[in-house]
Amino acid sequence: MIKITLPDNSVREFPKGSSGLDIAKTISNRLANDVLSVSVNGEVWDLTRPIEADAAVKLYTWDDREGKETFWHSSAHLMAEAIEFFYPGTRFGIGPTVDTGFYYDVDLPSGYQLVEKDLEKIEKKMLELAREKHDIVRSQVSKAEALKLFTEKGDELKLELIGELEDGTISLYNQGGFTDLCRGPHLPNTSYVKAVKLTNIAGAYWRGNEKNKMLTRVYGVTFPKQKMLEEYLVMIEEAKKRDHRKLGKEMELFTFSEAVGQGLPLWLPKGAQLRAQLEDFLRRVQKKYGYDQVITPHIGDVQLYKTSGHYEKYGKDSFQVIKTPAEGEEYMLKPMNCPHHCEIYKSKPRSYKDLPVRMAEFGTVYRYEQSGELHGLTRVRGFTQDDAHLFCRPDQLKEEFKKVIDIIFIIFKALEFNDYNAQISLRDPDKPEKYIGTAENWEKAERAIIEACQEKGLKTVTELGEAAFYGPKLDFMIKDALGRSWQLGTIQVDYNLPERFQLEYIGADDKRHRPVMIHRAPFGSMERFVAVLIEHTAGKFPLWLTPDQVVVLPISEKYNDYARTVSNILNFSDIRSVVDDRNEKIGRKIRDNELKRIPYLLIVGEKEAESATVSVRRQGEGDKGAMTAQEFAALVKEEVKMQLTGLYN
Amino acid sequence: MIKITLPDNSVREFPKGSSGLDIAKTISNRLANDVLSVSVNGEVWDLTRPIEADAAVKLYTWDDREGKETFWHSSAHLMAEAIEFFYPGTRFGIGPTVDTGFYYDVDLPSGYQLVEKDLEKIEKKMLELAREKHDIVRSQVSKAEALKLFTEKGDELKLELIGELEDGTISLYNQGGFTDLCRGPHLPNTSYVKAVKLTNIAGAYWRGNEKNKMLTRVYGVTFPKQKMLEEYLVMIEEAKKRDHRKLGKEMELFTFSEAVGQGLPLWLPKGAQLRAQLEDFLRRVQKKYGYDQVITPHIGDVQLYKTSGHYEKYGKDSFQVIKTPAEGEEYMLKPMNCPHHCEIYKSKPRSYKDLPVRMAEFGTVYRYEQSGELHGLTRVRGFTQDDAHLFCRPDQLKEEFKKVIDIIFIIFKALEFNDYNAQISLRDPDKPEKYIGTAENWEKAERAIIEACQEKGLKTVTELGEAAFYGPKLDFMIKDALGRSWQLGTIQVDYNLPERFQLEYIGADDKRHRPVMIHRAPFGSMERFVAVLIEHTAGKFPLWLTPDQVVVLPISEKYNDYARTVSNILNFSDIRSVVDDRNEKIGRKIRDNELKRIPYLLIVGEKEAESATVSVRRQGEGDKGAMTAQEFAALVKEEVKMQLTGLYN
Repeated sequence: MIKITLPDNSVREFPKGSSGLDIAKTISNRLANDVLSVSVNGEVWDLTRPIEADAAVKLYTWDDREGKETFWHSSAHLMAEAIEFFYPGTRFGIGPTVDTGFYYDVDLPSGYQLVEKDLEKIEKKMLELAREKHDIVRSQVSKAEALKLFTEKGDELKLELIGELEDGTISLYNQGGFTDLCRGPHLPNTSYVKAVKLTNIAGAYWRGNEKNKMLTRVYGVTFPKQKMLEEYLVMIEEAKKRDHRKLGKEMELFTFSEAVGQGLPLWLPKGAQLRAQLEDFLRRVQKKYGYDQVITPHIGDVQLYKTSGHYEKYGKDSFQVIKTPAEGEEYMLKPMNCPHHCEIYKSKPRSYKDLPVRMAEFGTVYRYEQSGELHGLTRVRGFTQDDAHLFCRPDQLKEEFKKVIDIIFIIFKALEFNDYNAQISLRDPDKPEKYIGTAENWEKAERAIIEACQEKGLKTVTELGEAAFYGPKLDFMIKDALGRSWQLGTIQVDYNLPERFQLEYIGADDKRHRPVMIHRAPFGSMERFVAVLIEHTAGKFPLWLTPDQVVVLPISEKYNDYARTVSNILNFSDIRSVVDDRNEKIGRKIRDNELKRIPYLLIVGEKEAESATVSVRRQGEGDKGAMTAQEFAALVKEEVKMQLTGLYN
Repeated sequence: MIKITLPDNSVREFPKGSSGLDIAKTISNRLANDVLSVSVNGEVWDLTRPIEADAAVKLYTWDDREGKETFWHSSAHLMAEAIEFFYPGTRFGIGPTVDTGFYYDVDLPSGYQLVEKDLEKIEKKMLELAREKHDIVRSQVSKAEALKLFTEKGDELKLELIGELEDGTISLYNQGGFTDLCRGPHLPNTSYVKAVKLTNIAGAYWRGNEKNKMLTRVYGVTFPKQKMLEEYLVMIEEAKKRDHRKLGKEMELFTFSEAVGQGLPLWLPKGAQLRAQLEDFLRRVQKKYGYDQVITPHIGDVQLYKTSGHYEKYGKDSFQVIKTPAEGEEYMLKPMNCPHHCEIYKSKPRSYKDLPVRMAEFGTVYRYEQSGELHGLTRVRGFTQDDAHLFCRPDQLKEEFKKVIDIIFIIFKALEFNDYNAQISLRDPDKPEKYIGTAENWEKAERAIIEACQEKGLKTVTELGEAAFYGPKLDFMIKDALGRSWQLGTIQVDYNLPERFQLEYIGADDKRHRPVMIHRAPFGSMERFVAVLIEHTAGKFPLWLTPDQVVVLPISEKYNDYARTVSNILNFSDIRSVVDDRNEKIGRKIRDNELKRIPYLLIVGEKEAESATVSVRRQGEGDKGAMTAQEFAALVKEEVKMQLTGLYN
C-alpha cells in the first residue's frame, strides 16, 4: 500500500500502482468523469500512470488550468493524427497549448497547402477519431529507438528535437495509428474530446528563426461538451465586437500614426477626456487617502538607473541611451517612476513623524517592445502609470496595505468590476538566499499583507516562491463581462530600492532607519486599463466617466439654436454635452449617436422648443418622456451622484 | 538743406550736416537734454554725427532700448579707461551691453587679479572721468592704421578682432586718453554718466572658446541720475528676495536632483498642486473657447522631425536620437508638440464645416541647453508647454486670433498682470523671397492680426521684418511687480507645417484646401510661467491659485483634534487647508507659516474649541476676528469667486 496525501491534507492508503483515475473513482463517480490529469508531488501526470510510492496528489478537472492544458495537449495530437490521415508524410514540429486551445506547426508534403476550407474536414476527422475512443498510451523509449522511429517516418523536425534530448528522458505517446514524441501528460483516451473548432492557419518559422523553413501553424480549440464550444464561439464573436481597437476607432478615443511611431498612442479628444475623468477620479480618491501628487521628467541620467539596478537588468533591451550634443551626458527614457520618486524623498530630511510619505504621479514611461508584440492599447511602448510610492516605517506597513486595498475596492466599485480575486505572493521558505532584506522584515511584511487581506475580507490564494526578490506582493485579477481574466493592480513591497538609494528617516530613537517602499498602480496603466474598460463595458462607460454624457439632436436645422441653448445650460451644470447639428434626418442622427455610446440623447423639435423642454432617450432603454433642461440636468447629476456616492467624499 | 522725416511722418528741412542733437534742439530743450542716440534710415548713429542727405530720423532717449544701449556702451568704454588707468598694459576683448548694463572682458597684465574691493576704486575713477566731460570722438581709420595703433599698444585681442574686419569699415572712438576699436554709436561725451555700479566679476574664455585664454569679465550698470541707481539697487535687492529659486525652495515648490539630471525639474507636492491649479484654470478657459485636449507621446520617429523640418534645423544641437535595441528604429525626444498634432489632424478627413479644429495639450518637450545656460525654472531642459494648435480656414484667422487674445487677457487678469504690451511682427516688405506662403495669404494674415488687435483695443507696436519665415506673429510682454519685462504668450501664424504635413480640408467647393495653423501658448511653459509668477507675487499667489489656502494652527497639542475637524470641514468645501500640528509655540507656528505664504492662518485654542469658531488671520493684513468654520469657508469661497468671476463661466 502507498500513502496518498490529498490537497485537504487528508491521507489515504491505496494499492501500490494505483493511478490518479483510480483515486478519483474512490472519491466520486462524478469526479472520475471530470478528472483530466493529476499532479503527483508537484508534477502533472497522465491520469492512468501508476503511482508507485507515497505521494501528494491533486486531481485536475476542466476548472483547473492544468486540466485544460492536458485536454488541449491531447487535442493537438488528435489534430496531428487527422492531418497525417489526409496528408501522409507531413512532418510535425511542436504542438503546444496556448491561452485558449492549442496549435501545431506542421510541414506538409511538398505541393500541399492548407486553406481555410480544409479545416472543416480535419475537424470532422478529429471528432470521428475521438468517438473511436483510442487509448492514449505512454511509452518510455531509448534515444536510439526514438531516432529509429522518426528516421523511418522521415520526420526531420522530430529528429532535430530528439537530437537535443538526453537518453533516458524520452517518452512517446500513441493513439490509434499516430505516435508522437512527447513529455505528456495526456488524457486516458481520445473520447474526452466532444467538440472541435480549428480557428486559424498562419505561417511560422521553424523554431521561431526566420532563417529556417516556414511551417504551417494550425490553431484549434476543443471542449468536453458541444455546448461549451457554442458558448465559446458566441463569446469570441462578442469579444470581436468589443475589441478595444475597433471601438477605440469608432468612438474616436485614440489612434496610432506610423509617422509618430508604433506602439505610441495618440489620445484623441474623446479619449483624452475619458482619461482625464479617470485620472481626476483617482486623484480625488488618493487625496482622501493622503497622497501627494508630484511631477517628474520623462528622462533621467543613466546613472540613476544604474543605482536602481534597472540598467543592468533591462538596459540592453530598452530604448537606448540619449546622448547630449556636448558635455558627454547620457540619459534614458524612464522605464518607471520609482527612481525619480526616491530622489524626491531624498530632497529633504525625513523624520519618523513625516511617514508615511505617499507620492503619486500619473507618470508616462517608455519601454521597448518588439513591434510584433504590440497590440492596441494593451501592449504599447509608451504608457502612463497611475503610479504611487508609499515610503513608510515597517510598523506602518499593514495599515498602508489596507488603505491601498480600500482604494482598489473603490475603483472596482466605481467601474463596475464585481468579479475579482487576489493572489498573495510570498517567499519560497526553502530558498532564503534568493531574497534581499532581513528574514525579520520579510516575516513582518508577509504577515502585514496576509492580515491586511483578512481584515479587509478579501478572498485570496497564496503562492509560495512567487514573491519578487525584493519583497512580497498582492495581485488583483478581474473578470470582465465576457468572463476573461485581466491582471490589474499590483501592490508590491520593496526593500531593495530604499537600500540602493540609501533612503533614511530619523526614528524616535534619533537614529537613522531605512523606510520600506510600497509600489502600487491600481489601474496598472491608463492605456491598458482603458482597453480593459472598453472591452468590459463594450464602450458603454458609466455615466460619470463617459466623455460625452449627452447629445442634443435637433430634428431639423431650424432647431439648432434651441439645441445649442440646451447644451449650454447642461455644460454650465458641468454636464458634458454636444450638439449634433448636421443636416441629417433625425433617424440617422439617433443611429449614429447610439453607435458612439452616448448615454443620453435629447431630441428637440417644434414641440420641445415651444414648451422649453427636451425629449429624453436613454441609450438601450428608449424613451424617457419630456422635461425641462433643468429637470434633465438634475436627473443626470443625481444619477452620477448615485454612482460615486461615498467613494471619495 | 536736407529733408528729415520724423516718426510722426512730418518732414522738416535742416542744413546739410546737421546732427541728431541739432534736430533735437529744434524740437525742445528737454529733448536735447534727454536724447542719447539717433536712428538715421534705420541705423543707430552717434548724436553728433553729421547727416549729409535726406533721411528718416528717430531720436532715442533712456526710455528706448536703443538709447540705453548707447549709454551703456559708452559706459563700458568709460570702465575700460578706468581699468587702464589702474592697470596699464591691460588688453581689452569685447565690451557689449547686456539686458541691464554692460560688461567688458579684459586681460590684466600678468600678476594682477581683480577682486571685489577693486571695483570701488574703478567706480570712483569712472565718475571722476565722467565729470571731466571728455568728448567721445569717432574716427574712421584704415585697417593698417588700426593695426599699427593696437600693435603699439600691445593689445593682441584687438589685433585679432581687427584682423577679421574689412578695410574701410573700421572706426575708433576716443575719449580723454582712451581709444577703442568700436562700431559705435556713443554718447557725445562722458558727462552723461552720473551714477555707476560695478556688479560682478566672472571668468570668461576669450570668444567663448574654452581652448582660449580665460579673461576677466567685469559687469557694471550706469545711470543718468543717482536716484535711478538707488532705485535699481533696491529693485535688485527685492529681486534677490523674490528669486524663484530661493522661494521655490522655501515654499517647497520644486527641486532639482543631480542624479536625475541638470535642468530637469522635479515638482514637489505644493508645486505640482500649483501647476495643476494653473492647468485646470487654463483648461476651463480653453474649454469655453472650444478647445479639445489631446495627449501625445514624448517621443516621435526621427522621420517626423525630418518632415517638420525641425531635424534639419535643430537636430545637431538637440538631445541625440534614441535607437531601439532591435529593428533599427530611431526616435527623438519631442522638442515641440506641433508635429504630433498635425498627425492627429490627419487621422481623419476634415471638412470646411469641421474647422477650426482647436487642439490643446499640456505637452512636455525636451530641448538640450548647455549646462551653463540653465537657470532655475526659467531655462530648463524639459518643460511643459500650455500648447495649442488651431487649424482654420484663412477666412477664420481674424476671429481665431481675437479669441486667443481674449484668452490671454483672461490669464493676465486672473494672475494680476496689469502692465503689458504687445508687438506685431510682420514681413520685411522689401524681401518677399525670405517668406513661404503666397503674398495674398500673408496680406490676409497680417491684416487679420492688425485688425484683431485693433478690435480688441490692444496697444501694439509693429515691427517690419520680425516675422518668422513661415508667418507673422503677435508677442506679449508683461511687466512684473519690479518693472522687469518678461516675454510670454506668442501667437504665431504658420503656413509652413500645413504644407510640410500636407494637411487638407474639403472646402464648400468640394475641392482640397490647405488650412492655416496658429501656434499659441499663453503661459509659454508651466516652468517659466511659475518662475515669473513667483517673482511677480513674491510667492504670495492669488487665493484661488495658491497651493495651501489655509493653515490651521492649534495653540497646543490639546487642540490638534479640533484643528483637524476644522480642516476637514474646509477640505470638504474644496478649500485647500492643512494643519500645523507640530509641537511648537504658536508664535513660531505663525512665523513659519507666514514664510510659506499661506494666505489664511486660523488659530484655534480653548476659546475657539468651546465656541466652535476659528480666529482668522489674513497674511499681511493681520487679525480678522472669530467666526465659525462654515462662515470662514463662505468667506474664502466668496473671495475666490470674486477673483475668477466671469473668466471662464
